[in-house]
Amino acid sequence: MLNKFYIDSLIKTAIEEDINYIDVSADLLIPENQRNDSYFVSKDDGILCGLDCAMRVFILLDDTFTFTAYKKDGDEIKKGDIIVEFNGKTRELLKGERTALNIIQHMSGIATATHRAVELCKGTKASVADTRKTLPGLRALQKYAVACGGGKNHRFNLSDGAMLKDNHIDAGGGIISAVKILRSKLGHMVKIEVETRNFDEVRDAVTAGADVIMLDNMNCEQMAEAVRIIDGKATSEASGNITLENIAEVAKTGVDIISLGALTHSVKAFDISMKMK
Amino acid sequence: MLNKFYIDSLIKTAIEEDINYIDVSADLLIPENQRNDSYFVSKDDGILCGLDCAMRVFILLDDTFTFTAYKKDGDEIKKGDIIVEFNGKTRELLKGERTALNIIQHMSGIATATHRAVELCKGTKASVADTRKTLPGLRALQKYAVACGGGKNHRFNLSDGAMLKDNHIDAGGGIISAVKILRSKLGHMVKIEVETRNFDEVRDAVTAGADVIMLDNMNCEQMAEAVRIIDGKATSEASGNITLENIAEVAKTGVDIISLGALTHSVKAFDISMKMK
Amino acid sequence: MLNKFYIDSLIKTAIEEDINYIDVSADLLIPENQRNDSYFVSKDDGILCGLDCAMRVFILLDDTFTFTAYKKDGDEIKKGDIIVEFNGKTRELLKGERTALNIIQHMSGIATATHRAVELCKGTKASVADTRKTLPGLRALQKYAVACGGGKNHRFNLSDGAMLKDNHIDAGGGIISAVKILRSKLGHMVKIEVETRNFDEVRDAVTAGADVIMLDNMNCEQMAEAVRIIDGKATSEASGNITLENIAEVAKTGVDIISLGALTHSVKAFDISMKMK
Amino acid sequence: MLNKFYIDSLIKTAIEEDINYIDVSADLLIPENQRNDSYFVSKDDGILCGLDCAMRVFILLDDTFTFTAYKKDGDEIKKGDIIVEFNGKTRELLKGERTALNIIQHMSGIATATHRAVELCKGTKASVADTRKTLPGLRALQKYAVACGGGKNHRFNLSDGAMLKDNHIDAGGGIISAVKILRSKLGHMVKIEVETRNFDEVRDAVTAGADVIMLDNMNCEQMAEAVRIIDGKATSEASGNITLENIAEVAKTGVDIISLGALTHSVKAFDISMKMK
Amino acid sequence: MLNKFYIDSLIKTAIEEDINYIDVSADLLIPENQRNDSYFVSKDDGILCGLDCAMRVFILLDDTFTFTAYKKDGDEIKKGDIIVEFNGKTRELLKGERTALNIIQHMSGIATATHRAVELCKGTKASVADTRKTLPGLRALQKYAVACGGGKNHRFNLSDGAMLKDNHIDAGGGIISAVKILRSKLGHMVKIEVETRNFDEVRDAVTAGADVIMLDNMNCEQMAEAVRIIDGKATSEASGNITLENIAEVAKTGVDIISLGALTHSVKAFDISMKMK
Amino acid sequence: MLNKFYIDSLIKTAIEEDINYIDVSADLLIPENQRNDSYFVSKDDGILCGLDCAMRVFILLDDTFTFTAYKKDGDEIKKGDIIVEFNGKTRELLKGERTALNIIQHMSGIATATHRAVELCKGTKASVADTRKTLPGLRALQKYAVACGGGKNHRFNLSDGAMLKDNHIDAGGGIISAVKILRSKLGHMVKIEVETRNFDEVRDAVTAGADVIMLDNMNCEQMAEAVRIIDGKATSEASGNITLENIAEVAKTGVDIISLGALTHSVKAFDISMKMK
Repeated sequence: MLNKFYIDSLIKTAIEEDINYIDVSADLLIPENQRNDSYFVSKDDGILCGLDCAMRVFILLDDTFTFTAYKKDGDEIKKGDIIVEFNGKTRELLKGERTALNIIQHMSGIATATHRAVELCKGTKASVADTRKTLPGLRALQKYAVACGGGKNHRFNLSDGAMLKDNHIDAGGGIISAVKILRSKLGHMVKIEVETRNFDEVRDAVTAGADVIMLDNMNCEQMAEAVRIIDGKATSEASGNITLENIAEVAKTGVDIISLGALTHSVKAFDISMKMK
Repeated sequence: MLNKFYIDSLIKTAIEEDINYIDVSADLLIPENQRNDSYFVSKDDGILCGLDCAMRVFILLDDTFTFTAYKKDGDEIKKGDIIVEFNGKTRELLKGERTALNIIQHMSGIATATHRAVELCKGTKASVADTRKTLPGLRALQKYAVACGGGKNHRFNLSDGAMLKDNHIDAGGGIISAVKILRSKLGHMVKIEVETRNFDEVRDAVTAGADVIMLDNMNCEQMAEAVRIIDGKATSEASGNITLENIAEVAKTGVDIISLGALTHSVKAFDISMKMK
Repeated sequence: MLNKFYIDSLIKTAIEEDINYIDVSADLLIPENQRNDSYFVSKDDGILCGLDCAMRVFILLDDTFTFTAYKKDGDEIKKGDIIVEFNGKTRELLKGERTALNIIQHMSGIATATHRAVELCKGTKASVADTRKTLPGLRALQKYAVACGGGKNHRFNLSDGAMLKDNHIDAGGGIISAVKILRSKLGHMVKIEVETRNFDEVRDAVTAGADVIMLDNMNCEQMAEAVRIIDGKATSEASGNITLENIAEVAKTGVDIISLGALTHSVKAFDISMKMK
Repeated sequence: MLNKFYIDSLIKTAIEEDINYIDVSADLLIPENQRNDSYFVSKDDGILCGLDCAMRVFILLDDTFTFTAYKKDGDEIKKGDIIVEFNGKTRELLKGERTALNIIQHMSGIATATHRAVELCKGTKASVADTRKTLPGLRALQKYAVACGGGKNHRFNLSDGAMLKDNHIDAGGGIISAVKILRSKLGHMVKIEVETRNFDEVRDAVTAGADVIMLDNMNCEQMAEAVRIIDGKATSEASGNITLENIAEVAKTGVDIISLGALTHSVKAFDISMKMK
Repeated sequence: MLNKFYIDSLIKTAIEEDINYIDVSADLLIPENQRNDSYFVSKDDGILCGLDCAMRVFILLDDTFTFTAYKKDGDEIKKGDIIVEFNGKTRELLKGERTALNIIQHMSGIATATHRAVELCKGTKASVADTRKTLPGLRALQKYAVACGGGKNHRFNLSDGAMLKDNHIDAGGGIISAVKILRSKLGHMVKIEVETRNFDEVRDAVTAGADVIMLDNMNCEQMAEAVRIIDGKATSEASGNITLENIAEVAKTGVDIISLGALTHSVKAFDISMKMK
Repeated sequence: MLNKFYIDSLIKTAIEEDINYIDVSADLLIPENQRNDSYFVSKDDGILCGLDCAMRVFILLDDTFTFTAYKKDGDEIKKGDIIVEFNGKTRELLKGERTALNIIQHMSGIATATHRAVELCKGTKASVADTRKTLPGLRALQKYAVACGGGKNHRFNLSDGAMLKDNHIDAGGGIISAVKILRSKLGHMVKIEVETRNFDEVRDAVTAGADVIMLDNMNCEQMAEAVRIIDGKATSEASGNITLENIAEVAKTGVDIISLGALTHSVKAFDISMKMK
């Protein structure tokens, strides 16, 4: 699904970081035409993500590479599951191994953490969403992983969604005026979200006709009250200091969206190994 | 220190991800010539890293940007510390904020975790090292952060250090033969490391004259014995399943180097905020 | 407003196309330190757009370049108006002239045509919008010019807005089902537009809760009826075969948005000259 | 014919503009393995150009894509003509459609307008030529389209042909001196063109041995006289304010070349549709 | 003179090759703010070329860098001459030293060899020219150096000059027919050169109206006869197996141009040292 | 062996330099589907290098290209040897010919010169090594060619090996102190080389535990004495003013490594021709 040119560029960058000349171990010791069967095995329980990207590493390095996948992005995997079996030139398998694993472990780590958050919100109307707190060059990769884990993608960038914080609101003459100005300039496909920190601001945002109202760093009681004020006239979004520890409680306040920076800025790699037969 | 062209490319990539057209919030609401004073404040205790990179974001966006730094990369910072004060065009501060924070939080997260590992090894001869388990495009950034946290950098890539694993050793006819072949082809500035999983392999690696011997997934008792076998004839490196929980114990085995993939593949962002006055 | 890195890349591309070695006329005849005063003058009436980009060409070529602008993007200009006066090295002025003019003439051409369309819709509620019918590499430039001319920007790309055409609808099991499926997967900041060709489809789109309903290639009478059916429950968009000749009539049907591919795919350059004193 | 690396880069740029993450409509609704037959049909009469480039879009996106072309670049096409039939993955057809059409419509627009100009010069010795008034990044594409329409390409850039205007001539001490200086420095494969605005300058340019003499903004009577003065000793080129309305008259003055900026700076897209079966 | 974007890209490439992380010697030992005076001194007699490019290396690395040049590109320099004095941050001087020297030594090597060839042709009408036998990515740099040494630049690439060899001539139905076909398709700014290997081909090329006739691998006697046949009706070019040993003799045959691949494909670096005070 | 992405980028750069539009000779004269058999023949005796890179040029231009290689990188070739036979589209063979030959001739030139140096050191323990005196963008290509000729690669860049010269040593407080500081900061895979100019410095370098000691511009007698002082406690490297004339003598001093900048900065192209049948 991810734009192929983006993935190919990212892999090129990663391989160039990893080989600026030759692989002094593999190229000098392994015969050029040696081939190996190999596979990826999961060392943990979670959600798989990044398999196509990982396979693409080997395809780009070795045009004789072939693989058979037993799982696909978004699938639950268990410790011990064989994810994919493949065959290729040994030299290229060794050259691509680290890059492929770095990608699939990072993406599966994100998908798995997102899935955990989504599970904790079950039974409520709350969706789990990502943020712009991503790593340089990896935004699309990370947002795709959030989606594979069952999360929703927040705006991709500063161009495709408006978000009004203090500075914007002050410059625009208050919430109601700022939203009005912006609406008159924005295209009809772009939504406006307003950050609020108290009930007066929430009320202003509703009056202003904001599409989304962010409840910034409120406690659960305050959020529940804010949801009542909004009363379905806008999408409500909880944000700030939300973790896997308190997300279930936040979800019960009735908010529509809970956004977590940690899904992408504090990723724990998911353990997958590559075994060469 | 980091290659300026590398940093500039990375920032360009990050900003292009974040603004593919205009910033529909700031560009449409904030007057073009409005300026703001602003600062970064630490929300946690740890090691600062990435300040130059973060400032470079604003410099590239706004050639009138100025700043006064109170801390520098590698410094310990406490919750509440003002790290840097700066002044620039409000629009550009808002456009650069997320990218700058994403970078400094990631790098400080790595430096802080590394520092913790280094502290746990104090009183032993063990150094803490990184691995090639880094994120696509971020290897230099991440390795620099490890160094700021007091860690040592392992080989940068497949070109500047040789590491012999099973497949290389099999293709080379065993450890002793493989090292010999490689030594005859490699330049005199490149070191050879051999992965070992038992004492026989350790002994072979010593005999082969390996520069570094990796003790792969051994328990502490085994590592201590391996260190005795090596007896200073090579650098010893512990690797595999080492965490902040067990690193102190590993350090006491007498190994020279302890390498941790988690320093770079499972980073927890360090909390730093940007405040606009 | 446009992302500075984007503009700089575009200028680099254009100059590299225009000088793959040296400028064999200027570099071999004009003394290195000769300077000239120069200015841009409008040869027509219209809306200025692209002045910053045009000046950036010279700034990048010549770090001693200075300019005084008398107009800014979005301003009306008349035949004979001096737009900007500048001073720089003669060689660099000559090297940058064609690229700077190619950019400003294209952008002002778009802004001027858009302005004409907007004027023709005055007195109705209809806004004029662009499309994805842009030229390779120039989308941001072209969309910015539409905005300068008083138009609205439609979705920027396939990632930031959903648009359901026949194939999507068929695959999704009809309009109502397709919108439902999509809504369950999309982030809360992304709007959904549905293309309709008859009143049944319009009614389905309303029922489905589409954010925007495109009336594709309908005549004015049909559009007026469709607007009545929609009745404010979604944004209505007229599209297909709309020109400056018939846009006023379309606007009177009550549609919210009128989108024209011709604003960006069939641009007439706006005549601006550079004069060197 | 166009350099393959150039085309591939241009397509990559266009697709990255159009998909910075995923195609939220196609990727979320269309099954991954769905395929479609599809075709391009002409909606107007003119000259086809850009078919290879358009097909390349789909080839790069989908390595299972196949096509059968019924026309080729440079062919006359009529309204209703099927240009090419193809088959590919539905998702990729939808992702590439807009980019492919944007390219082929632009190129065919240029070829068609050029052809019209060429037809109007029939029966005279005048050739129709393009200029450097092209769009950033599109020069090769546009010049190729001019050639497909039967036009001739003027110099590609500032490096491969010399053109002396006022500033060059002043710096070189007059036409005769400037041409002499330049000839002594230029390689033997580079031609020199001199811009002239009156008969004295034309005479000087002939005396100087200019390869090409541009008659800049002269009326037809003046051009005819200039052609007599040149008398075959140089190539004559008419330039400035020439349109499809007056080109036939200009051609009758006996000039060798008539160059039109409008061929590339004011392109009307040629209407071609993609239909999916 | 050389396109600034080209030079900057080349320097970026060279520095990225030379520093993929940090300079482990300078960055870890030299204090950040240490500065040094430094200079370039010639270790040989020849023609200087590449000074601006070499200085640009330091300017890009260090925005506090300043320099005073005593020589400029194209100047004769003697062993012991101080070429330029400069001052900058010691770390950046050390990081840029190798790249700057690699560039200036290569370019001065080309200029010096070219100058030698030009001197050997003095007193004849022959000019010395380069070829397309250049190194990947270095064509503009190398051709500029040839010009600095007093040589002429042959066509820059396959797009800006036509050269007919056997295969082209065979496909075109013989020299006369091939030139005619090509002339009918080529723009009026592009010259046609024909390769000839015997007097019949020379005569055909003259008849065909070729702009330039290459005398390929003829001996001096044959060349002199060919020049007589051509009799000023085309430019004559000697090519093939010409060296500094035999060039004077070739020049006396009366040819207009002598092209030497060795000027760019077999360059001897010119010895210039950087001294830090 | 060389990183495929690196080679592909280099070829793309070279072809874009050579064709910025179309090949005006081949594209306008040769029929699109014409094919030719063709081969590379050696015109000299030496070591082949760059065959894969040269073939890659044609593969990238023409996906129907096929070849049969009779030699491989590192093989000795004699004048008249057929190196490779191939078949492809005539147009693409002509477009790629110059680029392919430029690459293979440069690389074979380096390999051949290196081989000559290696032969001259036979019977001694001295290895021949390259330096960082390479051309912008060509370092990997050149270092690979040195290895094919039997040479050893010195450090690839400023990041993967430390080399202490005067300035580093002064800043570090003398050789012993500087090495100590650096060792405490460097990773365990990076070696330290110290430049020495007299016996005191050699002794200090030994005491400091330098991995490699460079004997800079010493005469042979001094080098022999230095080797005795070092006595196997470090690798010794001769450097400075070493040529094919004096290398045999240097080798006899007992040094381990002899590094020559000329291998890569002053390359004589090796003559290989492409013949089309």
